[in-house]
Amino acid sequence: MKFQTPKGTRDYMPEEAAKLQKVLDIVRSVFESYGFEPLLTPAFEDFALLSAKGGLGEAVKDEIYYFKDKSDRELGLRFDLTMPLVRVVASNPQIPKPFKRYAIGCVWRYDQPQAKRYREFWQADVDVVGSSSIVADAECLAATCECLERLGFQDFFVRINNRKIVQSVFEKFLGVKDVREAFRSIDKMEKIGEDAVRAELEAKGIAATDVTKIMRFLKISGKNNSIIQRLRKEYGEVGGLVELEQLLEFAKEFGIEKRLKIDLSLVRGLDYYTGPVFEVSLGEGVSCGGGGRYDNLINDVGGSDIAATGISLGISRIFEVMKENKMFDDLPRAALKVFVANADEKLLEETIRVAKRLRNKVGCASIQTDLMGRGLKKQLEYADGLGVDYVIIVGEKELKEGKYVLRNMKLKIEDRLKFGELVKRLKVKVKSNLAS
Amino acid sequence: MKFQTPKGTRDYMPEEAAKLQKVLDIVRSVFESYGFEPLLTPAFEDFALLSAKGGLGEAVKDEIYYFKDKSDRELGLRFDLTMPLVRVVASNPQIPKPFKRYAIGCVWRYDQPQAKRYREFWQADVDVVGSSSIVADAECLAATCECLERLGFQDFFVRINNRKIVQSVFEKFLGVKDVREAFRSIDKMEKIGEDAVRAELEAKGIAATDVTKIMRFLKISGKNNSIIQRLRKEYGEVGGLVELEQLLEFAKEFGIEKRLKIDLSLVRGLDYYTGPVFEVSLGEGVSCGGGGRYDNLINDVGGSDIAATGISLGISRIFEVMKENKMFDDLPRAALKVFVANADEKLLEETIRVAKRLRNKVGCASIQTDLMGRGLKKQLEYADGLGVDYVIIVGEKELKEGKYVLRNMKLKIEDRLKFGELVKRLKVKVKSNLAS
Repeated sequence: MKFQTPKGTRDYMPEEAAKLQKVLDIVRSVFESYGFEPLLTPAFEDFALLSAKGGLGEAVKDEIYYFKDKSDRELGLRFDLTMPLVRVVASNPQIPKPFKRYAIGCVWRYDQPQAKRYREFWQADVDVVGSSSIVADAECLAATCECLERLGFQDFFVRINNRKIVQSVFEKFLGVKDVREAFRSIDKMEKIGEDAVRAELEAKGIAATDVTKIMRFLKISGKNNSIIQRLRKEYGEVGGLVELEQLLEFAKEFGIEKRLKIDLSLVRGLDYYTGPVFEVSLGEGVSCGGGGRYDNLINDVGGSDIAATGISLGISRIFEVMKENKMFDDLPRAALKVFVANADEKLLEETIRVAKRLRNKVGCASIQTDLMGRGLKKQLEYADGLGVDYVIIVGEKELKEGKYVLRNMKLKIEDRLKFGELVKRLKVKVKSNLAS
Repeated sequence: MKFQTPKGTRDYMPEEAAKLQKVLDIVRSVFESYGFEPLLTPAFEDFALLSAKGGLGEAVKDEIYYFKDKSDRELGLRFDLTMPLVRVVASNPQIPKPFKRYAIGCVWRYDQPQAKRYREFWQADVDVVGSSSIVADAECLAATCECLERLGFQDFFVRINNRKIVQSVFEKFLGVKDVREAFRSIDKMEKIGEDAVRAELEAKGIAATDVTKIMRFLKISGKNNSIIQRLRKEYGEVGGLVELEQLLEFAKEFGIEKRLKIDLSLVRGLDYYTGPVFEVSLGEGVSCGGGGRYDNLINDVGGSDIAATGISLGISRIFEVMKENKMFDDLPRAALKVFVANADEKLLEETIRVAKRLRNKVGCASIQTDLMGRGLKKQLEYADGLGVDYVIIVGEKELKEGKYVLRNMKLKIEDRLKFGELVKRLKVKVKSNLAS
């Protein structure tokens, strides 16, 4: 009768939980450094709200945890952090604009669980509500890029596109009547391949010659500036082109222009994105987040016409990649870990007092004492298993001299020190930990 | 068609979210300073696990968010952080003991919502698994007390009791056959009053004279030591008495003995608590957490016989009390807030560059720029509304001299400074903020 985590969910055991917490802390500090402010919303929302995204409607039920409360209210675990934000903004018109908020939390999706993909996972979002300036989009990108840099990623990049460009070109030049339907097929490119997408587009009534042109358009590549020049040359001043240029201009000021790559085939979420669209990749094929501008969504749930843009980082995905690549070794160490051992059980009280004084005097340290009535050898084994940095041994002989044994667990060397010296030694270590 | 939070839940808007985050950060740092390690578990669990606590069974359905997934698996949102811990320990027997874990997160209960009591709320737990020594109970209490002290509480106290004492005395001296049933009635004392409890106990077959004795026993009061003396005198060496004495002894070493008050009428959770029991109060009648030793619970869900003890702090409750008493004013300030304004829209790019450089050079600061294309006056108004500490104004004239205007928003004074001086000034301010 042992229990496991429900299907598609997982525990983070202490070592992993501490690492995840480190990621969350870094992301939070970057977001805050850009002036984004936290917003906390419930884990579940009215089903009607959740179904309002991009006109998903009832179909969203298949993809989320849907349930009723005891009064038959229809609810669902949130599947993203955007719809809660949209709700907050729609029903609090008094919030000063721009409303720059970040949110870090779990979301739940009823996907088929795969290796390292779970139904419960962590996301971290930044959004700017109330600004229709492209500088807001650029700032969200800058904050996102800085998060990844601070976490130690070097080769990540962000694919960017603009819905207006694709829509204009499709409608005016490529004979597409139902742009949304076309996007839906194109969005499957990676999954089903080019031939299948071509077939779908033709089945949707687009002439084969236009489908060929569409494919050619989607594959336009090269440097960002040359893509823009080519678009301007071939299609003139199509909508969104200036926005794309502005985004690249602002990106320069934010120092992230090298991270951005125009990709005209990026049409994800074009049911609700209205302008710039982003997809963040840690390398080819490893998407770890995305976003874009959604100027209609707040209106869709009953708010006024309010511009909004934002990016969502898939923290759980980022965490897995960091683990695989042993990137946690390069991050600043956590609290210094200390164990105050007793050489004899009757000194347990003295170890408690020592630990208490050290907690007060040495910042950022994790300090514990024996709770098991164990002998010294077993205490040292336990401390070693915990990855403790230092063990302080309280022994009768040393205590008479007013001294304590400080054992460096890594180097396996011991010193006999007075309490004041002990504090100094540990403080130095805490400082160098934080700096490393 | 505006949406609200689902019944019994709430949003934390930025100002409140930042305050809640501060509470969570302080609690976390205290827990870690005692060597507790984080454990993250899913928001929902198998219903069978949730129903195993204290033999609650199907009845727990009424009190939780119960639902089925699409494969008809019975699930429920976790109602505490103990059952997930118990699951983890039962199914991971290899975890080294003692397993000292903390958990901070939301739990959900389907209570009738009341003023400032929600169905979704935050808890912070510390538990020690694998130690049957009372020093473990004392350490959990010490960590809890230090959290409250660090949050600024002064008059809090912890009522303590021991299930073994009450059970022994009830069975051996007060003619109670079904102790659990008696506890259930006594636990309602505050709600229904003494007369009603007396009536219930008599209805449960306890003679009126014994009920009188029970009431007398429950009301034994005085200093901790005199209560223990009196118990020993009246009932001899009843089980649990030594544990209670030990707890008070260890509490002395941890420096928390003044916080503890023996209260023999504290019988909450005695369905699963096996020894020491705690209830934390911020003042008369304001409970903000509780806990105790639950040596059988891990066994109950299929694990081996493992001792465990812990305390749960009701963070949402604590947060409300702190807000009411304006206690956040006394906590260290958050990040220094800076807004880099442009005196002319064509200087927007320069403000982005300045903000970027300041983020790199000044730690712990929240630094933002205009996203709305606003004039200087409106930018200053917005910054003021956000509670920004300093506005840096980038103006053409000053820029030519290589200077920036630094405006202290509280004192409403301005200085013209070079960039290096600006950085120095802000760094000093960041430091004094952290220290205050």
